[in-house]
Amino acid sequence: MDPLTLHRKNIGKLDITSSIPIDSKEVLSAVYTPGVGEVCKAIEKDPELLREYTIAGRTVAVISNGTAVLGFGAIGPKAALPVMEGKSAIFKEFAGIQSYPICIEEEDPDKFIEIVKSIAMNFAAINLEDISAPSCFYIEDLLSQELDIPVIHDDQHGTAIVTVAALLGAVELTKKTDLKIAVLGAGAAGTAITKLLIEAREVGLLSITDITVYDSKGSIDNTRKDLNPYKQELAKLTKQTNSRSFQEGISGCDVLIGVSVANSVTGKDVRSMAESPIVFALANPVPEVMPAIALEAGASIVATGRSDMPNQINNALAYPGVFKGLLDGKIRKVTSKHKIAAAEAIYKYHLPALTPDSILPSVLDKDVAKVIATAIIGR
Amino acid sequence: MDPLTLHRKNIGKLDITSSIPIDSKEVLSAVYTPGVGEVCKAIEKDPELLREYTIAGRTVAVISNGTAVLGFGAIGPKAALPVMEGKSAIFKEFAGIQSYPICIEEEDPDKFIEIVKSIAMNFAAINLEDISAPSCFYIEDLLSQELDIPVIHDDQHGTAIVTVAALLGAVELTKKTDLKIAVLGAGAAGTAITKLLIEAREVGLLSITDITVYDSKGSIDNTRKDLNPYKQELAKLTKQTNSRSFQEGISGCDVLIGVSVANSVTGKDVRSMAESPIVFALANPVPEVMPAIALEAGASIVATGRSDMPNQINNALAYPGVFKGLLDGKIRKVTSKHKIAAAEAIYKYHLPALTPDSILPSVLDKDVAKVIATAIIGR
Repeated sequence: MDPLTLHRKNIGKLDITSSIPIDSKEVLSAVYTPGVGEVCKAIEKDPELLREYTIAGRTVAVISNGTAVLGFGAIGPKAALPVMEGKSAIFKEFAGIQSYPICIEEEDPDKFIEIVKSIAMNFAAINLEDISAPSCFYIEDLLSQELDIPVIHDDQHGTAIVTVAALLGAVELTKKTDLKIAVLGAGAAGTAITKLLIEAREVGLLSITDITVYDSKGSIDNTRKDLNPYKQELAKLTKQTNSRSFQEGISGCDVLIGVSVANSVTGKDVRSMAESPIVFALANPVPEVMPAIALEAGASIVATGRSDMPNQINNALAYPGVFKGLLDGKIRKVTSKHKIAAAEAIYKYHLPALTPDSILPSVLDKDVAKVIATAIIGR
Repeated sequence: MDPLTLHRKNIGKLDITSSIPIDSKEVLSAVYTPGVGEVCKAIEKDPELLREYTIAGRTVAVISNGTAVLGFGAIGPKAALPVMEGKSAIFKEFAGIQSYPICIEEEDPDKFIEIVKSIAMNFAAINLEDISAPSCFYIEDLLSQELDIPVIHDDQHGTAIVTVAALLGAVELTKKTDLKIAVLGAGAAGTAITKLLIEAREVGLLSITDITVYDSKGSIDNTRKDLNPYKQELAKLTKQTNSRSFQEGISGCDVLIGVSVANSVTGKDVRSMAESPIVFALANPVPEVMPAIALEAGASIVATGRSDMPNQINNALAYPGVFKGLLDGKIRKVTSKHKIAAAEAIYKYHLPALTPDSILPSVLDKDVAKVIATAIIGR
């Protein structure tokens, strides 16, 4: 299956068709002028009817500026479009939701926000994607506040939901408690994972005694003078007051969650962890540490972001169901409750089939989206 | 066929699906990470490949700011969306082209242009729609210059193409020559119709001795001091130097093309025209003069914009084929040659079936788009 051939075959991956066969003057006059005028006038009178009479009531936008695409970095909005289109295709295939990709040629966060706001009315929800940190936090915060539709930066929350679900499974299998967790990487994913882990502890879902986040300069703690406001918040949330390197800090940890770069963790690092540790090495396509090395170093459960290895942590497992829940439940603001509900739903759904080589459902299991959606609507 | 019920049934009129069934890890890895990365890298290296690997190679945007929607005026982008969605549905149904509607909440022309430019890369062509004059001229000009995809304001050119096609038919039937033409209305449609009529004269398609355009203040001529630059251009193009009212000027004309407001032409006005005149009264939904009145006053051929009367002049007859031709022919700049080719193609296609009550093909005839596309590619 050569991706270039596949993409060239139909020129992209999405088909747009008319829901209504236009085969008579009556239908033409109803979908277009003059009949459509009645619909226009109804929406002019009550703008909320936009959600009942147009695709703005059921279409998710996948929006990017191409500043952090896959593992490639800022390759630009044109090169990002195939990813966004793929996400839209997955929305339809896995959750029955329709979605349209829009890449925006604008890197300035404030201008980008203005553009998104000016087109947001066409959509029922917005999935922000592949936007670099720390702009992604600012952009998501502002758009969430100012728009009356749900806005989710999936690189943060999709990844966080699947990671927490995977950790719930791994903890169930290993019966570990009082977890000491190291999160390596303080970008979009690392930040969101850390916040959701703290939330999971607060609602009693995970027993955690310590979480420390590490960036390329070491532990994120309140002794650091070089932290941006988002990292300052992480230091505060994780209550870290001592400075240490990742190599020092990983020692004795029960869980490592790597969301950083290829080969940044050694077998020695894993060996210094607590007995039979849990290692999620999610850098893509090359993990922080290869599973064979981590297992050889004593890890009990290993997960990566790769589709060709066991225990793939892929946000495609979460986002179709998350948006389905938000849309079906007419939920306009996403909270941590929704994310916890999604993580817990994935974990519980897979509980009967849980093994060390299968801590998550298959990404191809289309029932997962329904399970997540139901859980979100129930919160 | 109640338009409100029809629009509510499926929540709008467009369905977006995946071109590729995602039913195996191999396909998932090709449409999404990691395989899609190859496509991203290829586009990063050669941005032109965007047109071969993504829907940006085959999707027409229908874009509006909602400042001149149908006959309703500035009812806003939300109330405009049902029209844009209808156009997208018609694109697919009549020309097999896929299209997506985007309404933009921005009335300032310069800001609107910036927003369109920032999202233009997602599309193969842009159909501007329902944008008020004179901004529509400025917006279309600038976007056409600055983007490397075709940009057409359909309220101007779609209407002009169908009107010229209809006039060719009417002239064929009536054998009129040395036409004196009055165009009532100097907005988007009136301006574009006038320019295309002049072009048709220059290429020898129509025998015209005089064209005068009228706005609400009378003839557009070089004695007027209140003309915006677009109307000044009309005065120059039509070489008008004498001031007169529409009621004075219509006297003796062979052709009246009304693109103004309801009931602005009387039976007396039509009676003052040359013998057996041609009257196109295109104001929607209520024409400048009702066909019964114009016929009673001596008109030989009458057309309106209405679907429930004979000789409907509807831009839906032109735009699907025009964009099909531009896309299939990989034409990046639209010229008057393409518009003339389209008008002539519609006229010639209908020639065998031409009657005073049928000067145009049916808007439901799906072969028209092919005929237009072929003619455009041939120019």
